[in-house]
Amino acid sequence: MEPKTPKARRTRERLVHEAAQLFSVKGYFHTTVDDVLERASLTKGGFYAHFESKEDLARAVIDHALLVWIRKVADHVAQDGDARQQLRALFEGYRRYAVDRTFEGGCFFVNLATELDDQNEELRKLLDEAFAQFRGMVGVILDTGKAQGHFRADMPTEALAIAVVSYLTGTMMQAKASKDFSLFDRGNAAVVDLLSTFET
Amino acid sequence: MEPKTPKARRTRERLVHEAAQLFSVKGYFHTTVDDVLERASLTKGGFYAHFESKEDLARAVIDHALLVWIRKVADHVAQDGDARQQLRALFEGYRRYAVDRTFEGGCFFVNLATELDDQNEELRKLLDEAFAQFRGMVGVILDTGKAQGHFRADMPTEALAIAVVSYLTGTMMQAKASKDFSLFDRGNAAVVDLLSTFET
Repeated sequence: MEPKTPKARRTRERLVHEAAQLFSVKGYFHTTVDDVLERASLTKGGFYAHFESKEDLARAVIDHALLVWIRKVADHVAQDGDARQQLRALFEGYRRYAVDRTFEGGCFFVNLATELDDQNEELRKLLDEAFAQFRGMVGVILDTGKAQGHFRADMPTEALAIAVVSYLTGTMMQAKASKDFSLFDRGNAAVVDLLSTFET
Repeated sequence: MEPKTPKARRTRERLVHEAAQLFSVKGYFHTTVDDVLERASLTKGGFYAHFESKEDLARAVIDHALLVWIRKVADHVAQDGDARQQLRALFEGYRRYAVDRTFEGGCFFVNLATELDDQNEELRKLLDEAFAQFRGMVGVILDTGKAQGHFRADMPTEALAIAVVSYLTGTMMQAKASKDFSLFDRGNAAVVDLLSTFET
């Protein structure tokens, strides 16, 4: 259902934005359509003009969250042409995405994937695609570095892409659990140093 | 409330075991006391003879999950005295903990921490303590390796302990989301190789 007027589009955007924040904090199952409406100051009619169901809303929220993530992390990476700097910018961009509480509940994708992996096959696949894109992005940085001659040719790019995404998302989880985002400062420094052993 | 008879103790253990599995799959909020009772084939009276509330049950479940984790991962590590082998055993032990579906929903601690960090301060602290213990265990392995002369003295043990726990828990999350546990094979090999650069 595409909104027909600018006002309808703004309403839809408000629903999606507020739902992304609520899902990230309270989880998908623990958030009701009424919670979203209350936070967006809208009525039930306002919801069903835009979405058929909470699941339909969740699909739009995943698209929205991916755009937010790209704006916050991926665009930050693209500001330098040197893959070594891009890799450092990735770690710093993800740390800022965490510290700035871009999503109030931490990483939207980590939270939703952890909750839904066993419970909603369609949404699980959409979230898995987001992680696959993230791994793909890291892989492109590493392969670019090889092509530039900045990283050694024997660097196992696919395996390291898994490791980098695991490290960043795992640190988000621990930082949230401990309420201590300085885990990112200490962890990032050690991992960036380790990865620099692949620099030529 | 400590059980007074062997039968009462077995009942209590059954409730805790089934709740750990349910919480890991469905989450804490999405699991009801009735769900636990149904899975354990018990009546409501049988529950309240042992626990005051679902939150009270959750505290016992976290203790239980920690014992399960130690039996599966930590004990595996302690079988070798050489810290270099202990570190490798840690990666392999965690991979098996994941692949064997020790908890049906993946890592009990990752799932519960991700869900509860913003929503239940007391349980968040208990889960954070579990991660702090995990980081502490990795730190002890690395420091032991230094004392044995197997790891370089300039190895940043605390920061690497954060990184290793982040990597393992993040891989669990991605493997569950993608339903592909071979992520552990590829990721572990790359990370173990990277860490071996600290061997003397």
